[in-house]
Order: sequence, then structure tokens, then C-alpha cells
Amino acid sequence: MVIKGEIWHGGDLAKARALFANAPEPWIDLSTGINPISYPLPPLPQSLWQRLPGADDEAALLAAARAAYHVPESAGIVAAPGTQILIDLLPRLEGHGPVAVLTPTYGEHTRTWLKVGRVAREIATLNEVGDAATVVIVNPNNPDGRVVSKQDLVAIAKQCDARCGALIVDEAFADFTPEPSIIPELPPATVVLRSFGKTYGLAGLRLGFAIGDPALTEALHAAMGPWAVAGPALRVGATALADSSWLAQAGAARAADAARLDALLAPHGRVVGGTALFRLLETGNAPALFAHLGRHGLYLRRFQNDVRWLRFGLPGQASEWARLEAALAGFATSGPGPA
Amino acid sequence: MVIKGEIWHGGDLAKARALFANAPEPWIDLSTGINPISYPLPPLPQSLWQRLPGADDEAALLAAARAAYHVPESAGIVAAPGTQILIDLLPRLEGHGPVAVLTPTYGEHTRTWLKVGRVAREIATLNEVGDAATVVIVNPNNPDGRVVSKQDLVAIAKQCDARCGALIVDEAFADFTPEPSIIPELPPATVVLRSFGKTYGLAGLRLGFAIGDPALTEALHAAMGPWAVAGPALRVGATALADSSWLAQAGAARAADAARLDALLAPHGRVVGGTALFRLLETGNAPALFAHLGRHGLYLRRFQNDVRWLRFGLPGQASEWARLEAALAGFATSGPGPA
Repeated sequence: MVIKGEIWHGGDLAKARALFANAPEPWIDLSTGINPISYPLPPLPQSLWQRLPGADDEAALLAAARAAYHVPESAGIVAAPGTQILIDLLPRLEGHGPVAVLTPTYGEHTRTWLKVGRVAREIATLNEVGDAATVVIVNPNNPDGRVVSKQDLVAIAKQCDARCGALIVDEAFADFTPEPSIIPELPPATVVLRSFGKTYGLAGLRLGFAIGDPALTEALHAAMGPWAVAGPALRVGATALADSSWLAQAGAARAADAARLDALLAPHGRVVGGTALFRLLETGNAPALFAHLGRHGLYLRRFQNDVRWLRFGLPGQASEWARLEAALAGFATSGPGPA
Repeated sequence: MVIKGEIWHGGDLAKARALFANAPEPWIDLSTGINPISYPLPPLPQSLWQRLPGADDEAALLAAARAAYHVPESAGIVAAPGTQILIDLLPRLEGHGPVAVLTPTYGEHTRTWLKVGRVAREIATLNEVGDAATVVIVNPNNPDGRVVSKQDLVAIAKQCDARCGALIVDEAFADFTPEPSIIPELPPATVVLRSFGKTYGLAGLRLGFAIGDPALTEALHAAMGPWAVAGPALRVGATALADSSWLAQAGAARAADAARLDALLAPHGRVVGGTALFRLLETGNAPALFAHLGRHGLYLRRFQNDVRWLRFGLPGQASEWARLEAALAGFATSGPGPA
């Protein structure tokens, strides 16, 4: 069984379409961890598009984010057009020592340090931190949902602080299970990244935050300058982050969806982890299952570090669930043989 | 006559409102150079908000920008969430030599080089470039509309190139008078900044471009990472930049507006320059006129480098023109005496 071409990253539906040219439309993109049921856009007055983003709108957003994320008063916070730009800027602004990235995880974390010439090692457990001055941890982790305890995070932060580095915690998937968030107890020399788009199903809006060490959040703000976040994003973010009842309802609904997805996946392998927005399946048939679902117009995320892994985002509409269910049933019947 | 408090920058309507607490609402913000008649927003499908900004949408935007700005095929181009972030990132990415900024101009140009520790001098004429390896020129200039000739730009670019620096040309106000744009003849070691929001009256959208030396545009792209521009901004930008008939119509209408504004201002001083989106008035009565118009709910831009200057953006609706006209007439009658 040969898959022509390569497609390892999520979010690139055009490539999936090219790879499986005969797949039925519309494609169902399960390759990302974006909530398929979006927060309803509030009214966006024309002035939000027309005027420079206002200081009052930015202040409203930051106040809502401080409340939603339980940010201590002494901590700094900066909003950005998505978390990715913060991941790209941090290696240019923070310290000079060696870096350790807890992996496997979102690949951009290692890549952004290496591309500015920093020494960055990928480690599999926290026992391997070694001489690293700066440590990057995605918590809960993508793709396996691994959670690092607060005690461990505090201990590592102290070590990073002593080495004039920083602990960087990417909490992109912490909104629906906030208990492990380190923000309320923020240790020194720590920066936490929070993503708006995944939880609220509005990844195209571009909104993310860095929270923590004021010197670092201020450096990030200075590197982007004023007005980096669009006016509509300020308004949508402020509205949504203040809507705790939507978050609670969405969290319960996605947890139910995740359990439903696990049940669909159970016959095909072992669900080894995930969050409420994605599930990680481990199976020796992963390449064949990826191809089978691709031919049915379902796009998954696979992994070069472990070819037995497939990450499934959540379907949204009932029709998407039905197509996934039917395609999985077809794989169970036909088996992983040649198509 | 005393103005309590300080308000020197444009775009901060909340401060104007605080300074002139008894002014009639709604305020008319003439403090920026943003087209008051915006490009009509095209339909924005939900998917633009929900999905990560797509590679196909970004490619469509860049193709439209290349055509609209007459970008040579060999030149690089990168889109950003507004031009400001490019102004902030360039000093972190470009060369190491001394910098000269042709002034008076948009204050962020000098400030961003100084804040990263670069040696930056403000010069009044190109004869003062001296040993600068990097030169920053806003063309046409804000606030006085000064235009530097292409021959001069090419000569300076060659000098910067020989000194391993760069010529940075901010063409934020070049869309309605594109003749002096250096993009079609792009010299070596040159980066041109173009702003979308001012011309199209959509400053809240956040969209700008760096065009030119591929090493520098690629460095800017790497510093921001993927997806820095929001999905809706990609779509609006691609649509608007391809709409040359709107641009021609808007350019003619704004030129007529500028002439009408000049006629209104003529009794109050000398219009010493500007572009189709703002006019610069020079008058010994500038502080009194600023305060008089402020009390009438009209917010202008004034200047610390020359207190005789007031910059007027264009009114939009007929009611705004009427209020400006009436307030100016009232100043002529009452004179600059105490309020």
C-alpha cells in the first residue's frame, strides 16, 4: 500500500485534496484540534474594521482574558494575532542558554529555537532537562494529552530562573480542563501561552496570549508594536472570554463528543490520549487507515515520530459524524488491504 | 490660552474625549490619514473565521498585491497584520550599521530603531545621510507630503547596499498617487512598506506588506511565522487589491475632498503639504485652533516638532463636512482669543 506524495502536517486541506483526488466533496478536516462548533460571532460594528484598533477595545480584551485565565495581578499579559507569532518571537527575545523541549509535541516549538541558532534538544521526559536554562512544555500536550503536574512545573521554573532562562508552558488546549493550568500559581521566569481560536472554533480570527513574566510579555509587546491584533478580534475575544456559560456548555459537549469518538475508534486500535478537542489513536494499520479515510474525504493528522499514530479532531455536524462512522465501518469490513 | 493635559498622537479618541469633556458627540476623528469612505466588505464565509488562514487564501492575497503594487517577479513579498509590526521587526532583523531617518515623519520609524539599541539619527535632508548604512524614507511623506525622486532613491539604495545596510521606503500613502513608487524599479537592498488599511478605510483589519529584498522579506516572514494575517483580512485584501476601478474612483473622490478641505483651511493659514488623505496646515494659531475644534468635537493631529502644524484628515459624511465648516467659520469670527 503506497501513499503517493507526503502530507504530515494538519490544516493543509489543499494538499489532502491533491493526494486523494477522487475523494468525495466536501472534505471533512479532522487534521486539527479546532472546536468544530464555533462561538457565535457577536455583532461587529463597521467602526471595528474602519478605525485603528482602539486602546479601550484592547483593554476590554485583556481584562476579559485576565479573568478567564485567572491571571495574577502581578503577571504581565500581551495579546497577539495568534499564538504562533509568540512561538516565533520568544526565541528571539529570551535568554541565551540551552533549550529543552518536551516531546513529542507541536513541532514548531523546537523548530523556532533552532531557526534562530539556539541550541535546542528534544527530550522525552523531564528527567532529561539536564543543563537546559529554558524548558518548553505543552500542557496538556498535543497530541497525546500528557499532563505535567504543577509541582513539576514549579520545580522546573525555579531551575530555569536560577539559570537565567525561562519556563514556557503552551496551554493551547487547557481551556476545557483548566485544573492543571499553572497561571494562577505563576512561578517566576514563566511564560504561559493561551490560544483563543481552538477552543472557540475561530482559528481564522488570529488571537492568542502570552501571560507571565512581565519582562518577557513586555518584550513580546515591544517586538510587535501597537495594533497587532485586529479590531474585530479584540471585540470577539472580549465577548467570548467573558462568556463562561458558553465555555462550560461547550466543554461538556466536546467531552461527550470525545467519548463518542473514542467508541468509534476502539475497534481500530488503542486511543492512547488526547484532549476534549482531539483523540490520538495508535494502530499498526495507521498508514492504511489514513489512506482509507483520505479516499473517503476525511483528513487526519499523522506523525513522523510514530507512524502508528493518527490524531482525530472532532466532527461537527451530524452528517460529518455519519460519514466518519460509515468510513470506519468500511475499513473494519475491508481490512487494511490494498484499495 | 491653556490646553490641559497632553494629546499629541493621532487615533486616540478616548484621550480627546477626556480633554474636551463638554464637546458634542459624536466626535469626528480627523487625527489620522485613514480614508473615511471604506471599501465595502465582501461576503466573509464562516469558514474564514473558523479555519486556520489557508495557504490558497494567502497566495490569492499575495498575487493581488503583486499586481496592484507592480512588484517585479524577482522581489520578495510578505503580508503582515498591519505595517506597524513590520516597522517594529525590521530593526531586529536588518544589518548593524548606523541608521538615518528622513524627518519630520511618522515617529515610530526612529523610535523602533532606538528601542533595540541601534544608532539612529533624524535628518532633515538627504544631504545629511553621512555614514548611514540604512536609510528610512516615508514617500510620499507624512505629514507634509514631500516626495523623494526615484533617482535619489536609487542613488541612496546603492549606497546602502555598498554599506551592507538597506533602504527602507514607507509608501503608506502611495496608493492614490503611485507615480513616485520605487517598487517597479526596485533597487537592490531595498524594502518597501505598503499599508492596506489607510487607502481602503479598513485600518482595523490589520494588513500591510513588505516588498523587496528577498532576504529581508523572508526574515520578516520567519519572525512572524505562518498565519500571522487573519483569514478575513486575506479575503478582504485579495478582493480590494484586485478592484482597480474602486481605487481609481476613490482616488478621484479623495483628491476632490482634499481640494475642498484646502479651500476651507485657506482663511486660517497656509496648507504646506499633504496627500489625498490628509492636509497639513501651518498657522501661528495652531494651539488655539486645535482647542477650538476640540471643543466642537473635532479631533486633529498636532506636532511637537512644529507647534504651528495641524494635520487634518478628510471628513466623510456630509454632516461631518458641515460641522467642520461651521466650526472653522466660528473660529474665524471669534478669533484665537481665550475660550
